Amino acid sequence: MSEVLLKGKAAKTASFMMVGISTEEKNEALGKIADQLLVDQEYILEENQKDLEAGRKNGLSESVLDRIMLNEKRILDMAEAIRLLIDLKDPIGETLETIHKDNGLLIRQNRVPLGVIGMIYEARPNVTIDAATLTLKTGNAVILRGSSSARFSNEALVQSIHKALEISKVPVDAVQLIEDTSRETAKELFHLKEYLDVLIPRGGKNLIDTVVREATVPVLETGAGNCHVFIDESADYQMAESIVINGKTQRPSVCNAIETILIEEKWFAQHGKDLIDTLNDHGVEIYGDSVVSSVFGTAKLATEEDWYTEYLALSVSIKVVKSVEEAINHINKYGTNHSEAIITASEDRANKFLNKVDAAAVYHNASTRFTDGSEFGYGAEIGISTQKLHARGPMGLNALTSSKFFVYGTGQIR
Amino acid sequence: MSEVLLKGKAAKTASFMMVGISTEEKNEALGKIADQLLVDQEYILEENQKDLEAGRKNGLSESVLDRIMLNEKRILDMAEAIRLLIDLKDPIGETLETIHKDNGLLIRQNRVPLGVIGMIYEARPNVTIDAATLTLKTGNAVILRGSSSARFSNEALVQSIHKALEISKVPVDAVQLIEDTSRETAKELFHLKEYLDVLIPRGGKNLIDTVVREATVPVLETGAGNCHVFIDESADYQMAESIVINGKTQRPSVCNAIETILIEEKWFAQHGKDLIDTLNDHGVEIYGDSVVSSVFGTAKLATEEDWYTEYLALSVSIKVVKSVEEAINHINKYGTNHSEAIITASEDRANKFLNKVDAAAVYHNASTRFTDGSEFGYGAEIGISTQKLHARGPMGLNALTSSKFFVYGTGQIR
Repeated sequence: MSEVLLKGKAAKTASFMMVGISTEEKNEALGKIADQLLVDQEYILEENQKDLEAGRKNGLSESVLDRIMLNEKRILDMAEAIRLLIDLKDPIGETLETIHKDNGLLIRQNRVPLGVIGMIYEARPNVTIDAATLTLKTGNAVILRGSSSARFSNEALVQSIHKALEISKVPVDAVQLIEDTSRETAKELFHLKEYLDVLIPRGGKNLIDTVVREATVPVLETGAGNCHVFIDESADYQMAESIVINGKTQRPSVCNAIETILIEEKWFAQHGKDLIDTLNDHGVEIYGDSVVSSVFGTAKLATEEDWYTEYLALSVSIKVVKSVEEAINHINKYGTNHSEAIITASEDRANKFLNKVDAAAVYHNASTRFTDGSEFGYGAEIGISTQKLHARGPMGLNALTSSKFFVYGTGQIR
Repeated sequence: MSEVLLKGKAAKTASFMMVGISTEEKNEALGKIADQLLVDQEYILEENQKDLEAGRKNGLSESVLDRIMLNEKRILDMAEAIRLLIDLKDPIGETLETIHKDNGLLIRQNRVPLGVIGMIYEARPNVTIDAATLTLKTGNAVILRGSSSARFSNEALVQSIHKALEISKVPVDAVQLIEDTSRETAKELFHLKEYLDVLIPRGGKNLIDTVVREATVPVLETGAGNCHVFIDESADYQMAESIVINGKTQRPSVCNAIETILIEEKWFAQHGKDLIDTLNDHGVEIYGDSVVSSVFGTAKLATEEDWYTEYLALSVSIKVVKSVEEAINHINKYGTNHSEAIITASEDRANKFLNKVDAAAVYHNASTRFTDGSEFGYGAEIGISTQKLHARGPMGLNALTSSKFFVYGTGQIR
């Protein structure tokens, strides 16, 4: 039996055992994991060094190496995040609906764990801890399949988790790491319907597209963010500038950063120069439509491809539009259904935009950067869903649960 | 451009127009559809005759022909179902969560339509009306892909729908029928990610398995029901008999019928003969394990395959087990996560069973036949989900919705 099949089977068995584990027992296990990470810190950092050395040898970029890199501060942050997770309400067991039937049947719809969750992810070893602890809190078992570039770090982290679980009520098999990081094990996971209830890919567009295309296991798509801000003719200049600069420059590498600015033509005639100068001052490279690029020498001409592009860098596309309708159509064509903002003093146009733009989160007069589990007050986030089924937008603990109907009778038949 | 692409594109455009349509306008359109079906009754029945004649020529079984068959009563039932649907609460616009942030941001999570729903289904023309009206009520557009065996009926029904929509506020393109019923159009729909937000297959196991395996569009799996009843040692005989007979014989062709009976050995020794005699009296064919088949001459020996089989007929498998644990393990191995029942006087064993059995609906002392949208009080049902994501169990109108975060600010940035 292959590693994936063996561990899949063990995880399924563990997930059935998890049904009997109480909130207190889960929280106790989480506390032990936090402790163990600190105890094992030295070993984890040694193993992380091996990944970094291999990465340098393989010519990984500094930004990728930074994502792989662990240090004392980052391990402390992991432990802190686990302590915050312990304080969050356990969603399992919550009654979502109670139905009393005339025939005396009592029907209760309760929240239950999903079962076994498969995580396929890239680089960042902190996803290993996030995924293992969020799934544990929600009574699930998890199969982790990280990338080869972080394999030593991931193995060390899961070793610490296992040490902690051994002295807890949670079965050790509830957290499984696939050590073989070849493409074959990912492919096996795509089709492990017998043991996996859901697959969550975290990483770049290529990884996510591959999982969505190939997997027969249901997928929770955590997606790309080609986010737009539309500046309406009635927009206050200061507000527009501050939202654009925040959305584009505060953290350009994240999915809720702004990638395209759509500007109403009258506003552009009046304020375009000021906004573009400010963007230039912040080191933002501009890809403009024919109007923008012909008027401003610092702007390159945007290609069709640019409107689709999530730069994840200090670059932005700018298009001048005639109306809120044109802005809505542009976003619904080129966007990725993540986060979209309108800046306007008009309630009417704001409502039209918010209702007609198809995205997980739509903003009136605020930065798209707020689309985030902790900003929304969820305390923990497994990713941001850009699909419409099951969960949309920032996914907290509830997104890792399913429901089940409990029906209590006294012999009722139909 | 292919038929599927053209209609997919038109449905997407219509789904954006649906955002502006009020509950009253949707209900008015539904009323007009109900009226038009009655006006067009004669033509619909003529077209249905063509399907029935072709079906007879192609040697379809009487039970399949019955599923295709329409008559005045069945068309009246369709119209009545639409009138009941009009009275149901419109879920669109409902606020699921309101978050007030310290920085003044107001975040509202509202229910919104899914967008465009693809339905791939077999035989029954009433699915055409169900799917079109449920998706319309929830503000979605729909692409219908029925089977060739009901193509004349489906085209006639959709013609009536279009006539009704033409004199309503709902765009005609919100309901699209794919007229080419070749395998190619189904395959195109599997991958129509640009225009389809979800695919719902309704039909036999083969159809559903194919869609789940091949589709890259997210699927809502409405599934097979290999349902079990476990009779514990403390079960009252009369209750057990009545639930077994009801679950097996009241309507054997449906997914919530009982397919396997698990019996605790002491109960079997005392009551096995009576139960099996009663099953025989009801014309039920029995596939028993080695104990059952060696004691009772009327029982055939069950093969491994039998434990996996959804007979959908007057057949049942029977196994004698030592404990509730053995029953739970059997169900979690062979079941399809649909509906599972325990009959017992022991609260402890009931709770163990209900918690540990992995199914959409679990029953204590009641028939599995209650797993049904109208029995649960949902008024309308698009299918019964056996998957864990998005919706589990009977799916009412809410299952055809997604959610969206509306964020209202006054210039907030991070």
